[in-house]
Amino acid sequence: MNLLLLTPGEVRGDGTALLTGRRHEHARAVLRVQAGETLRVGVRGGRRGTGKVLSEDAGGLLLRVTLDAEPPPRAGVSLVLAMPRPKALRRVIPAVASLGVDRVVLVNAARVEKSYFDSKVLDPAYLGGLVDLGLEQSRDTLPPCIEIRERFRPFVEDELGRWAGDSVRLVPHPPARLAVPRVAPDRPVTLAIGPDGGWVPFEVELLERAGFAPVSLGARVLRVEVAVSYALGRVR
Amino acid sequence: MNLLLLTPGEVRGDGTALLTGRRHEHARAVLRVQAGETLRVGVRGGRRGTGKVLSEDAGGLLLRVTLDAEPPPRAGVSLVLAMPRPKALRRVIPAVASLGVDRVVLVNAARVEKSYFDSKVLDPAYLGGLVDLGLEQSRDTLPPCIEIRERFRPFVEDELGRWAGDSVRLVPHPPARLAVPRVAPDRPVTLAIGPDGGWVPFEVELLERAGFAPVSLGARVLRVEVAVSYALGRVR
Repeated sequence: MNLLLLTPGEVRGDGTALLTGRRHEHARAVLRVQAGETLRVGVRGGRRGTGKVLSEDAGGLLLRVTLDAEPPPRAGVSLVLAMPRPKALRRVIPAVASLGVDRVVLVNAARVEKSYFDSKVLDPAYLGGLVDLGLEQSRDTLPPCIEIRERFRPFVEDELGRWAGDSVRLVPHPPARLAVPRVAPDRPVTLAIGPDGGWVPFEVELLERAGFAPVSLGARVLRVEVAVSYALGRVR
Repeated sequence: MNLLLLTPGEVRGDGTALLTGRRHEHARAVLRVQAGETLRVGVRGGRRGTGKVLSEDAGGLLLRVTLDAEPPPRAGVSLVLAMPRPKALRRVIPAVASLGVDRVVLVNAARVEKSYFDSKVLDPAYLGGLVDLGLEQSRDTLPPCIEIRERFRPFVEDELGRWAGDSVRLVPHPPARLAVPRVAPDRPVTLAIGPDGGWVPFEVELLERAGFAPVSLGARVLRVEVAVSYALGRVR
């Protein structure tokens, strides 16, 4: 935890905030904070700054909050991500949040198991906790917007064009010859990352019709969180 | 598991191999193989190919092995990696192996806890198991060479110059202005990835004297396996 994440409502009119639960426990047991120390804080969806420890006791961690800095620059990347296995989803969501991805849409695909959509990991509170882990890691305050689409074809045919806006649209697909290009930082990018085993040809065709260029990430089959991190490094 | 990894000794003179234990169990319970099917196989340190299932029973999985393909191309990257926490090491070693990194030296650093060097994860058998997970993931057969150096300064001053050879030497360090450059695929690269909290200035100075250029990975503090994957994407 490289930043204590506050909700907007937690910062009171007098500039103090009382933290309880996981963040208090982390500050107490891991950081071993003392009154007078200063911690990095940020408000979810807002600015970053410092929290001076006024007190720490059984009632919580009381901070005086100064919000004097902007969150780090965005990656300018949106992801269309074939719904990963729940175990992989638990790893990829923090990674994606830490990398500053703006939007993730978790979609069905031929090689996605239907049961993945019933996973408790998709519970909004659970998912929000995974996002927080990533934001706390990278000292960010801006969560990615995460959406779920259980039907691939209607999403790609009816929604994706508008969703992807004027971004550069790339679909990593092993047979492609063109390597993932580096894209100028001011151009948004949408990456469509397939499931274990990849997109099937029909899915790639639909994505191509939606303006996605097939590109190669290399000959290696990577785990989803490694593939996403590697692809973001390539493109940015 | 996208490839069944065999040891060189397992392929017998008649071209068959009998697998037991974890790989047999995976083939039986997850892949549900039947006699006559073909699986992807590879020999650790050698070639890849297919294994035709001759039989599967309590005694193991009997394959007829044909090794007709080379492993995937290497990343051409070596890593100097500040020893991660054991939990992070368990994630980064499979990632590094899947990305085709050639060599990893796990080094001490000011912000590394001494106890990390006593972790059971560093047991060669345990470490080898983590490497296999990464190779099986990316259908590779060539494990990275992993070394451990408990003293940073003598390693950097006395060994690193020769170790890094004629590679492009880069040390991601947040204050650096220069972004990680893309390096031509035929030039080897050595990346020195610091611990949680980063390298201390003295360590960066020593690395600079050893020919490492400080570069920036961006404003975000990334988990080690995300940072390594992202940096490899950037550089390659």
